[in-house]
Amino acid sequence: MNALTPQSLFDLSGKSALVIGVGTLGRAGALALAAAGCHLTIADKGAAQLASIATELREAGDGRAVTTVEKWPETEADAEAIIAAAVAAHGAVDVMFVALGWNNVGYIEEQSYEAWNKVITANLHFYWLACQAAGRHFATRPAERGRAKVAMVSSTRGRHGLASGYTAYCASKSGLEGMVRALGCEWAGKNANANAIGPTVFRSPVSEWMFSDTDPGKSVRETMLERIPFGRLSEAEDLVGTILYLLAPASDYMTGQTLYVDGGYTAD
Amino acid sequence: MNALTPQSLFDLSGKSALVIGVGTLGRAGALALAAAGCHLTIADKGAAQLASIATELREAGDGRAVTTVEKWPETEADAEAIIAAAVAAHGAVDVMFVALGWNNVGYIEEQSYEAWNKVITANLHFYWLACQAAGRHFATRPAERGRAKVAMVSSTRGRHGLASGYTAYCASKSGLEGMVRALGCEWAGKNANANAIGPTVFRSPVSEWMFSDTDPGKSVRETMLERIPFGRLSEAEDLVGTILYLLAPASDYMTGQTLYVDGGYTAD
Amino acid sequence: MNALTPQSLFDLSGKSALVIGVGTLGRAGALALAAAGCHLTIADKGAAQLASIATELREAGDGRAVTTVEKWPETEADAEAIIAAAVAAHGAVDVMFVALGWNNVGYIEEQSYEAWNKVITANLHFYWLACQAAGRHFATRPAERGRAKVAMVSSTRGRHGLASGYTAYCASKSGLEGMVRALGCEWAGKNANANAIGPTVFRSPVSEWMFSDTDPGKSVRETMLERIPFGRLSEAEDLVGTILYLLAPASDYMTGQTLYVDGGYTAD
Amino acid sequence: MNALTPQSLFDLSGKSALVIGVGTLGRAGALALAAAGCHLTIADKGAAQLASIATELREAGDGRAVTTVEKWPETEADAEAIIAAAVAAHGAVDVMFVALGWNNVGYIEEQSYEAWNKVITANLHFYWLACQAAGRHFATRPAERGRAKVAMVSSTRGRHGLASGYTAYCASKSGLEGMVRALGCEWAGKNANANAIGPTVFRSPVSEWMFSDTDPGKSVRETMLERIPFGRLSEAEDLVGTILYLLAPASDYMTGQTLYVDGGYTAD
Repeated sequence: MNALTPQSLFDLSGKSALVIGVGTLGRAGALALAAAGCHLTIADKGAAQLASIATELREAGDGRAVTTVEKWPETEADAEAIIAAAVAAHGAVDVMFVALGWNNVGYIEEQSYEAWNKVITANLHFYWLACQAAGRHFATRPAERGRAKVAMVSSTRGRHGLASGYTAYCASKSGLEGMVRALGCEWAGKNANANAIGPTVFRSPVSEWMFSDTDPGKSVRETMLERIPFGRLSEAEDLVGTILYLLAPASDYMTGQTLYVDGGYTAD
Repeated sequence: MNALTPQSLFDLSGKSALVIGVGTLGRAGALALAAAGCHLTIADKGAAQLASIATELREAGDGRAVTTVEKWPETEADAEAIIAAAVAAHGAVDVMFVALGWNNVGYIEEQSYEAWNKVITANLHFYWLACQAAGRHFATRPAERGRAKVAMVSSTRGRHGLASGYTAYCASKSGLEGMVRALGCEWAGKNANANAIGPTVFRSPVSEWMFSDTDPGKSVRETMLERIPFGRLSEAEDLVGTILYLLAPASDYMTGQTLYVDGGYTAD
Repeated sequence: MNALTPQSLFDLSGKSALVIGVGTLGRAGALALAAAGCHLTIADKGAAQLASIATELREAGDGRAVTTVEKWPETEADAEAIIAAAVAAHGAVDVMFVALGWNNVGYIEEQSYEAWNKVITANLHFYWLACQAAGRHFATRPAERGRAKVAMVSSTRGRHGLASGYTAYCASKSGLEGMVRALGCEWAGKNANANAIGPTVFRSPVSEWMFSDTDPGKSVRETMLERIPFGRLSEAEDLVGTILYLLAPASDYMTGQTLYVDGGYTAD
Repeated sequence: MNALTPQSLFDLSGKSALVIGVGTLGRAGALALAAAGCHLTIADKGAAQLASIATELREAGDGRAVTTVEKWPETEADAEAIIAAAVAAHGAVDVMFVALGWNNVGYIEEQSYEAWNKVITANLHFYWLACQAAGRHFATRPAERGRAKVAMVSSTRGRHGLASGYTAYCASKSGLEGMVRALGCEWAGKNANANAIGPTVFRSPVSEWMFSDTDPGKSVRETMLERIPFGRLSEAEDLVGTILYLLAPASDYMTGQTLYVDGGYTAD
């Protein structure tokens, strides 16, 4: 049973990890992967932010090399370039965490097609392009590196609607979960897994207002908390353990799933 | 209890019904709506087919006027034009059935972004545009016409993945189901409902090969049937009753749901 | 397409219908079935109530014979007796609606095993016993009578937990939905369907307090309504159309499903 | 971020772990918990087996004390006695893994009520009793011990029916998942989490025949494998990582969930 100690089941040391999107959740995941001993590649727009996070990652990773790519997977070529950079730097991509995201809120009657489409593009198309490029790489990745693992960011909105102008966001996240199911099946025989994490609201620059002690944040939060049995919104720290689990050998027989880490929101 | 007889609960006579997409399922739904006494508007590409189906509908509807619009809801303007034509002809849209659909099969590594995007566009964007234009109309539709009802075509693939090159189709249908949930919530206070039907394979020109007595249809069907407890694929006739139910007063308190009419596929 | 008119798809005239449990929802379903032209058998405890509802049913059914059985399906023998009475009176059971229900509210630490077990017994065991006896009858029921249809009463609690002492109720209703899925598969080749309806709170003697204009009903309702996009609790009348749909030919290709008729509760 | 290293997120050392049911999966979980540095209490029927597994656990746990209780949670008193033994030995129960299970296969028309009831009793009632006793203990457990974590064994049958005589098993597992959702909500404010793991078939003395190279095992397995994208049935080793994840701090913000670890079965 030696291979089944917690140490080995959650061991990610020496893996090549690619994180696409290093906003709050992507950065937290990247830091945890660095602390776990991964070689990191991070991709996002914004040279200054990339450089700053790369510095953090080097510290968390005890000085290991960190590669940055200033791109989003907006086209097949962009996605290929991101994967190619990780492969060039670290020999392969063993685990990938895609944490891009966008939202435009608007009632369907008032929202423009462009605004709707931008949400679908960022939350669905970019993920598909990242997985396409990853899948092409996985096809030649040596089997002895173990199963390739991909974790993506869905949301409780992948399962639940919302009355306040969320047709785009809900469609994008539900769509992602469907893509994850299909990919899970498609990749099962190809030594790769696809899963997702579904958070509820977690603190980030975008949601910081909901953590405020004054209105409107306070009242919006209080209404929201009536739906969250834990009685609090979340922090990236609440989600990091699940990201590691989804990327570690512990979940090697799980695929096509979305795990809701939401203080009981979807259970209620 | 007079209002609760089967006659009144499923009464659609005199309603203005719009059907977008009159392939196999749209046509079957339109015929049933005509037989139920609706005034019909049908929208699709293909002038000859539209005219032919309009003729069938006039017969099924005892000579009632049938309006045709040679468009898909490809843009906001197209969708608005479809709704406007129905309103001009019949005073309002009371019930709408959207039955467009497209699929491109391909493993994610081999499929082009264009092929993926075309599926998302037809199965998700066009539905959103149709609902946007309908919602704008519903905002001024008289309350005394009863709840506006929209039924859309999802698929068992909205809940289940598939290993054989279905990332686009699964994402599009899951995405649609998420959009339906959000719309159900958003429209609840606006006198309108949004629901979907989720069929498994039904006979159509596209699927006819799967009903064949020779291979590959025969063997593909037999594999598929191991997953369908009913032991047979379906016909549009198996689905028509659910379409009527979703558009009739019988379902006025149901919204945001997808009903799987699939011979037990999703139950198994 | 003649067989696919609304008239034929929702035609229940001349069918032998059995309703087990004639509280609010069972009674409403029975009245709608009588109005639809069914021959009725009703089973419940309480001779006076049975007789009173039988009188109502005869009026709704234009004087058709109504059979009563003063039993619940508490044992195999009881369930067999209920089915036998319906068969003796009307030649067969074509459609069956089981609408029994019980709840004991209590935090798990405070609830007795007996209180928990009573909920499981009423909401799960009795349904299984009713289906067992029905299934034995269906095995010899002539195929030319069409598919036998069984509808059962689940709840939004079959999908959602609740923090206020609902382990028993949630387990019983989730369990029922699992039984419905298994039965849907098991009966698929046996000319019978099993489905369920999942309501949220509807007005009944048990829930009447939640419709009150004074507390605690008012405040409990208002909290509840923040979860129901329709902004109102339901009436049995909101559910009757779905019961008829589940029992009519319209749903002949659907099995193993639970339909949430809940003003958007599960969509939100 | 020091607290968010893989080491701390999955750290279970020094915890008091209770495992109820030490068949294949319970034993594997107990061994992993021992290897993770937990103090163990195991409860099951069968003195010889208990003693044998206790010996294994002492080895895996580097000689740590292991407590055995020769009971199932068949009554409130039994469940209380199991918890009391763990508390007496190790001061508290920090994490609990319930891995009891039973199945009787039979078509509903042929199965006895006793056979049905035995499945519900073992898979649902015993779990509820274990949780009741645990909950009573959690009420006085010091907050500084961290969140109490309970993991239970559901099955892909909690979400899927099966045509071959599974009404009892499917109802019991679906029921358990509903209980888990309710408990997740109920315990959220009480410093305790409830979640479940949903495996597909894994190798055990009960399922060993399905791993055979000869019929009927071979053909039953091959049919089953058409539904499992991974193309193989599972081993307890495939599930252990998820059990640890559900019991470790990594999942502290997740509750009321069932995680399907099934080689893609539920995704397909």
